[in-house]
Amino acid sequence: MNRVTTLDRSRPRRGRPGYNRESLLQVAVQVFNERGYDGTSMDDLSKKLGISKAAIYHHVSSKDELLELGVNRALDGLFAAAAEATAAGVPAIDRLEQLIRASVAVLVERLPYVTLLLRVRGNTEVEQRALDRRRQFDRLVAGLVAEAKADGDIRPDVDPAVASRLLFGMVNSVVEWYRPNEATSAADLAEAIRTMAFDGFRP
Amino acid sequence: MNRVTTLDRSRPRRGRPGYNRESLLQVAVQVFNERGYDGTSMDDLSKKLGISKAAIYHHVSSKDELLELGVNRALDGLFAAAAEATAAGVPAIDRLEQLIRASVAVLVERLPYVTLLLRVRGNTEVEQRALDRRRQFDRLVAGLVAEAKADGDIRPDVDPAVASRLLFGMVNSVVEWYRPNEATSAADLAEAIRTMAFDGFRP
Repeated sequence: MNRVTTLDRSRPRRGRPGYNRESLLQVAVQVFNERGYDGTSMDDLSKKLGISKAAIYHHVSSKDELLELGVNRALDGLFAAAAEATAAGVPAIDRLEQLIRASVAVLVERLPYVTLLLRVRGNTEVEQRALDRRRQFDRLVAGLVAEAKADGDIRPDVDPAVASRLLFGMVNSVVEWYRPNEATSAADLAEAIRTMAFDGFRP
Repeated sequence: MNRVTTLDRSRPRRGRPGYNRESLLQVAVQVFNERGYDGTSMDDLSKKLGISKAAIYHHVSSKDELLELGVNRALDGLFAAAAEATAAGVPAIDRLEQLIRASVAVLVERLPYVTLLLRVRGNTEVEQRALDRRRQFDRLVAGLVAEAKADGDIRPDVDPAVASRLLFGMVNSVVEWYRPNEATSAADLAEAIRTMAFDGFRP
């Protein structure tokens, strides 16, 4: 992802000089991730962006709107991945594997946005809506695990609700330590997660 | 864990009326987790505790000290678990299993403290020290995975560094959704994690 800093003003732009809605969102999400959403004021954003608050309000109506745009960037990616994975006419276990691969790809491509999403605590209406969508995603995963278990493709002693939370706990942990361009590609990472979850460590 | 609120003043106390260092720490950590450490001022703590800032400073020298006490409560528990697990004269794979069980027990027993620890981003010296200790713990886990792999007890295609991060990503995700007193005990949870990591989902 092309990270825009206050010094990077070389690209084509719309609206106020320096930023369009997209590049402004990128910087805002970066600042939210560094300082916490609650700990970031519009003044902080204005200083970091090097533009006035009025110039920010030219693009977005509030800090809340930036948060919503940011978390939806993550959620829309995850739901698109889920829609594609679950549409395939294959057994649930294969759809689950596909969902893991696609979700890891979204995490890696949209790392700052997913990071922001995973730190949302539900303190505002926007955060509540994001948590609702996360829960909807969790239910979808748990449903796939339950279906795969009913098919006999998952061990009978696995609790689908617990297993799906642990599985996505593992997937989501990627935002804490993985940085793109390392020796491990998104596909390697997805494969490592798939292997651990489905086949386990043991030889 | 016995959660103390501003209304719970029934227990024996030392120092200023209402709180001792321990119960003050419990409330402070709860507030840090709700609002974020950076987003919490000593004024916020004073209001939440219902005592003056001077009364808080009777027990601790700064907000930073509260953070350090809080994260060390988590880290000390994890390192004690690691010391016990790694001292056993058994193969690395068994020490790793024991470490997972003991770590999950610490997470469940010290949930608010581990939650605080996992949100530390390294913005202050105290946070840097906490991150250093987390990295030390991660290296210890990666070392165990590497040793188990050398013993032939872990698949040759598993990368110890990636696997240990995913493993503890799964373990740490517990703070996001597990609440004590549910139908799932800490031991059930540890067993679910151990099963997924070592044997995988498949029947």
